[in-house]
Amino acid sequence: MTFLLHIGILLLGANIGGIISKKLKQPAVLGQILVGMLLGMGILEKTELIHYLSEIGVIFLMFIAGLETDVNELRASGKSSSAIAIAGVIVPLALVSGAAFMISGDWVSSVIVGLISIATSVSISVQTLKELGQLRTKQGVGILGAAIIDDVIGIILLTIVVGMARPGTGSNIFIVILKILSFFVITIIIGYILVQVLARISDRVNVRRKIVPYAIISCLILAFISEELGVAAVTGAYFAGVIFSMTPYRHKISHDIGLISDNIFTPIFFVGIGLGVDLNTIGVGIGYSLLLLGLGIIGKIAGCGWGAKLTGFSGKHSLQVGIGMVPRAEVSIIIANLGLKMNLIGHKEFASAIVLVVATTLITPSLLKWSFRGEGKIKDAA
Amino acid sequence: MTFLLHIGILLLGANIGGIISKKLKQPAVLGQILVGMLLGMGILEKTELIHYLSEIGVIFLMFIAGLETDVNELRASGKSSSAIAIAGVIVPLALVSGAAFMISGDWVSSVIVGLISIATSVSISVQTLKELGQLRTKQGVGILGAAIIDDVIGIILLTIVVGMARPGTGSNIFIVILKILSFFVITIIIGYILVQVLARISDRVNVRRKIVPYAIISCLILAFISEELGVAAVTGAYFAGVIFSMTPYRHKISHDIGLISDNIFTPIFFVGIGLGVDLNTIGVGIGYSLLLLGLGIIGKIAGCGWGAKLTGFSGKHSLQVGIGMVPRAEVSIIIANLGLKMNLIGHKEFASAIVLVVATTLITPSLLKWSFRGEGKIKDAA
Repeated sequence: MTFLLHIGILLLGANIGGIISKKLKQPAVLGQILVGMLLGMGILEKTELIHYLSEIGVIFLMFIAGLETDVNELRASGKSSSAIAIAGVIVPLALVSGAAFMISGDWVSSVIVGLISIATSVSISVQTLKELGQLRTKQGVGILGAAIIDDVIGIILLTIVVGMARPGTGSNIFIVILKILSFFVITIIIGYILVQVLARISDRVNVRRKIVPYAIISCLILAFISEELGVAAVTGAYFAGVIFSMTPYRHKISHDIGLISDNIFTPIFFVGIGLGVDLNTIGVGIGYSLLLLGLGIIGKIAGCGWGAKLTGFSGKHSLQVGIGMVPRAEVSIIIANLGLKMNLIGHKEFASAIVLVVATTLITPSLLKWSFRGEGKIKDAA
Repeated sequence: MTFLLHIGILLLGANIGGIISKKLKQPAVLGQILVGMLLGMGILEKTELIHYLSEIGVIFLMFIAGLETDVNELRASGKSSSAIAIAGVIVPLALVSGAAFMISGDWVSSVIVGLISIATSVSISVQTLKELGQLRTKQGVGILGAAIIDDVIGIILLTIVVGMARPGTGSNIFIVILKILSFFVITIIIGYILVQVLARISDRVNVRRKIVPYAIISCLILAFISEELGVAAVTGAYFAGVIFSMTPYRHKISHDIGLISDNIFTPIFFVGIGLGVDLNTIGVGIGYSLLLLGLGIIGKIAGCGWGAKLTGFSGKHSLQVGIGMVPRAEVSIIIANLGLKMNLIGHKEFASAIVLVVATTLITPSLLKWSFRGEGKIKDAA
């Protein structure tokens, strides 16, 4: 029954960290991650249960982000999001891989390190933008859209690199592309059917009263399918949210799942990120890590900002988009893990991925808050 | 990421099972357990995650039961609850142990089998009574109170038997009693402090808006402490609920945690009970199992009904109390497991415990519903 104590401590830490952060005018997320790092110094380990609850937390977080996405706005911002994503892949990939190549002279490991630096994980930005009341602005929508697109680009590039580095064992690039395409086809079909069925039965059944469990079930199953098809589970959860955002129940679902998530899963996810940090690994090659970190951040802000500027954002909004795209988390860690396991990168490169994830996670909330200073909140209707 | 699919299937099964049950005028719990048994036939296994989520589910369930307990009513029903519990221990223990002794001739295993048959697990009755709108009646309060008291009696008796069967390895009975007493002292102290602190700060802080996470944390930690002290975790969760029921936030907490629990944890708990049933184990000694099952049910209804009648319940209400005390679950399984592990009972006796748990779980909701037919719902204020 120790797991009850673990969850109790995690939630207590998350709430205390959140309160202190807010007193210091920082987003709650930052305090929660720092509390996680503190708890990780011998008090708590990241047990399998905490890992699972964290995963559910990030999935609910992305589901709610999807629910709060306005599809019409996203459609309008499709060109922007693509430009932000593509420029935000090219610039950091060139900078980070170039620097890594000049140091190591090895192309494969350098490209992997570059790939680690491109996969944006917007969950931190989403939470911060939510707290700031900016999730549904043009910049918020642009960030969400671009993060989804750059995940797909990252996965395709990774598959190409791994396939080229290991002929025979790597998976066929056409199969990978086929899988990603089939994910979108499945999502669109499921979405269309769901929206139609809900519209049909709403006359006979009190859908509103019973919709929430089925929304959760749809979210979990679509997240699973997307993971099976080689797309990240969070992407599936996000699109499940987008599907339900097109129904009349979006506010009810968003409210109830928000309540479930905010009280249990989301705080566990953010404290869990802190818990997962092994401070010892970071000591290895800190100079190398800091160099790549700097290039990764500059490359992302410059690249995404450039993409935003090109598609009509103001200078200030472009900077906000660039900063919102800075955080890297699970996908970077997953790529680094894969590279290490396949002997394509060494421990120094792996440590630099940890530093990248921790540092971008820690600084993004404050940077975002700074970049949005003085802007009025856009309240989500509830 | 398969766990997402597992949870999705569990929740889908729970919701479909619930709908079918309700169409057949049965409590949702029954359908959920049967769906669990179906899913357990090769489709799903009870993974560790499902086990943990189920545990959280039963803890939330008991926490909400505590929140909905009226302390003044419980105080008024203290004499009844004690009489129900004590008579409900003596009668089935005598019947079941007596029959087991006549068959096996072994005192220790017979007493263990008797103990398996006495530990009431009211979670099923709680859920059914909630659905029937009868949780806050005199009978509901009597059942809850008696179940808590008979858990304590069961634990003390088990410790005595284990201690006597295994001199040297068994724990000291006085230490066990001391632990149970210290649990109640700790609970009363924590409860007193919490209620006082909340009353003091409610002028300065908007407690209502932030109370829910702290209620969850208190519930988890008190459940953990109670388990550490040898009292079941669910008992700790129940008393945590009782503590918060004495604050002005009981309805807010009950509503929000009810929403969290009903959408995720409680359905997983009930489908999980079905999943946990190994149909093969039941084949062993089915006659023996059915005999003890019959005696266990009759003994419990007669004993508890007698206790209720003695303390002023009407005949119909006494029957309702007796039926509400019939279900056995975790504690019985735990005792059976312990007995098997210590070689105090054999596989036949273990199988009879499984049959007892499954059968009482399956029949109680329908029996309860039948016994309450024609009575008006007492709505919980929300």
